[in-house]
Amino acid sequence: MRKLRTVKPDGRYLIYYGFGERADLPAISPLGETPPQAAEGVPAPQMRWNPVLRQWGVVASHRQERTFLPAEERCPFCPTRDPQRPTEIPAPDFDIVAFENRFPSFVSGLSFPAETEDELYRAQPARGVCEVVVYTPDHHASVAGLSVQQVRNLVEVWADRSQELGALESVRYVFIFENRGEAVGVTLHHPHGQIYAFPYVPPAVERELASARAHEERTGRCLFCHILEREVAGGARLVLEGRHTLAMVPFYARWPYEVHVFPRRHVTSLPELSEEERMDLARALKVLAGKYDNLFGFPFPYVMVVHQRPTDGADHGYYHLHFEFYPPHRTADRLKYLAGVELGAGTFLLDATPEEKARELREAPPHSV
Amino acid sequence: MRKLRTVKPDGRYLIYYGFGERADLPAISPLGETPPQAAEGVPAPQMRWNPVLRQWGVVASHRQERTFLPAEERCPFCPTRDPQRPTEIPAPDFDIVAFENRFPSFVSGLSFPAETEDELYRAQPARGVCEVVVYTPDHHASVAGLSVQQVRNLVEVWADRSQELGALESVRYVFIFENRGEAVGVTLHHPHGQIYAFPYVPPAVERELASARAHEERTGRCLFCHILEREVAGGARLVLEGRHTLAMVPFYARWPYEVHVFPRRHVTSLPELSEEERMDLARALKVLAGKYDNLFGFPFPYVMVVHQRPTDGADHGYYHLHFEFYPPHRTADRLKYLAGVELGAGTFLLDATPEEKARELREAPPHSV
Repeated sequence: MRKLRTVKPDGRYLIYYGFGERADLPAISPLGETPPQAAEGVPAPQMRWNPVLRQWGVVASHRQERTFLPAEERCPFCPTRDPQRPTEIPAPDFDIVAFENRFPSFVSGLSFPAETEDELYRAQPARGVCEVVVYTPDHHASVAGLSVQQVRNLVEVWADRSQELGALESVRYVFIFENRGEAVGVTLHHPHGQIYAFPYVPPAVERELASARAHEERTGRCLFCHILEREVAGGARLVLEGRHTLAMVPFYARWPYEVHVFPRRHVTSLPELSEEERMDLARALKVLAGKYDNLFGFPFPYVMVVHQRPTDGADHGYYHLHFEFYPPHRTADRLKYLAGVELGAGTFLLDATPEEKARELREAPPHSV
Repeated sequence: MRKLRTVKPDGRYLIYYGFGERADLPAISPLGETPPQAAEGVPAPQMRWNPVLRQWGVVASHRQERTFLPAEERCPFCPTRDPQRPTEIPAPDFDIVAFENRFPSFVSGLSFPAETEDELYRAQPARGVCEVVVYTPDHHASVAGLSVQQVRNLVEVWADRSQELGALESVRYVFIFENRGEAVGVTLHHPHGQIYAFPYVPPAVERELASARAHEERTGRCLFCHILEREVAGGARLVLEGRHTLAMVPFYARWPYEVHVFPRRHVTSLPELSEEERMDLARALKVLAGKYDNLFGFPFPYVMVVHQRPTDGADHGYYHLHFEFYPPHRTADRLKYLAGVELGAGTFLLDATPEEKARELREAPPHSV
């Protein structure tokens, strides 16, 4: 893997990742050919403390203006093939790129003073980094259609971003995710994911950490290793078993087609995965994506998130890296909506049994046609 | 207020609430004219414990079959005007009715054994009650269009349901809510809300209770009274100020047009509200609903939830009753989606400032045309 770091005219960085034949270099347009973009005058996002739920939220009002479902020829994540029509990526070809989000919820180097700082309400600059990761130059590609090697390269990039962003003083959590499909609000179709480098450990992760910590203290073992052991023994909720990787619909799924993907070995973060484990994980992600797309014969929308250890300096050896997929469909033509019971009470209602859904996914063929 | 309790042919109860002129009685069709419905063979819903998030979820696979956007003449919540076409409500007219949900997530009197009960996974029958509350016989009505007196009658019914359901041995929390509009997944348009009588205190409420308890221990006062004081003093986020009721966009809003409605007086549940407070609350709810509908000139979708004290026997005197509205729109034609950051990290991103949105709502006229 080779990395080439460059800076866009508006000051945002962009990193080319090259693999295999292309590992030497992409052919980059000289800086300055891309006209400056709107990012410079971006209003600073603000973190606000919710004293009732005791968690942070982010007010980023400029995001209201973000690019919304442009025509394919105006896709900002395609390579720049016509210098008259520069995209976000000023090169005619590339393997994978990561760059700062033009509409970030967290921004590095903010220094304006907090608006309020009292016992009830707290607000502070939302310091952190938001990146976009473009998986491939091919606008019409999908994870299911990429080669295993290409997905493995993506795992490599995620591991590298985890390490680089996690090393920043202000970053306590590197959160990798992908929103796919208009049903989850996606505004750009080119295959891509995002990374939020948070200045705090986000509450959903905090909850998992607390449970895993408590389980280890009580039983002496990893909560997730324990779950994996049960799932392998039972089998009813397994979706796929790789040599180093397991995928299952959890016993406690919140979404009908929810799948969690785990490395079998107890590792806490992406950078710890061995070469073989990365390859096997890539295979599992590709196969799962193919199963999803073949379930109903259309590109299956989902939210994918990576849960790994925080980078806050504390010891989180009890934690176990995994991926979680939340697809919004409950049938081919019906979505699961979060409404009163989920949003106002915090209890998820499942219109299906996890065992049924796991069987459907086991039986779905892996590759897109 | 008069109550008349009756039982439907399939065994579910239905309660007529009558007010004013109608307080004597609705003209009820004799039982048995309504053909038995499908509810008898309903598979029992199951609670499953999530050991990672340490919270309950509910598996209710029969809900997949629930009625989906029927044509108006087949609306199950309209009065039965033609005995050949019985609806859920076997009377030609009514004020307000509450009855057991045909597709419940919690069912009373379940007694099948738990599927598993070990240190990792727990499952148990989902014991509780799910009710539908039909606000009016008028299929095309809306809360904004009801009279203040009618909304006050609804508050009365909610208070009565809170008391009656809360008194059940198995019920630890009476959760009143309304999902409105297809954007939040509503499958029936007739104005109605729902009630879930939970066998546990739901996690979103649990969190608020913990914060309120901690705040009282630390400062000697109610967290919410403290917030109200600040909002009245500041004013920038107030949406309306009634004599006994306040509505505001919270400093820590998670949805652009989120509004919380509080009684000014420190009360912990609906039954504690005085007659004057109920009337004032009804006025506030009607005015807010009208503002919502006039914001963009169409019936504004929202999730409305009531947060009140649990009915678990413990002392929750530190808590403060309120309503929360979560509308999914961020503009007239764009929705706010929950995706990776909200669902996988637990941090809400707001594309707007609460102060801006409060001003828009203050300026929106209160009544639907």
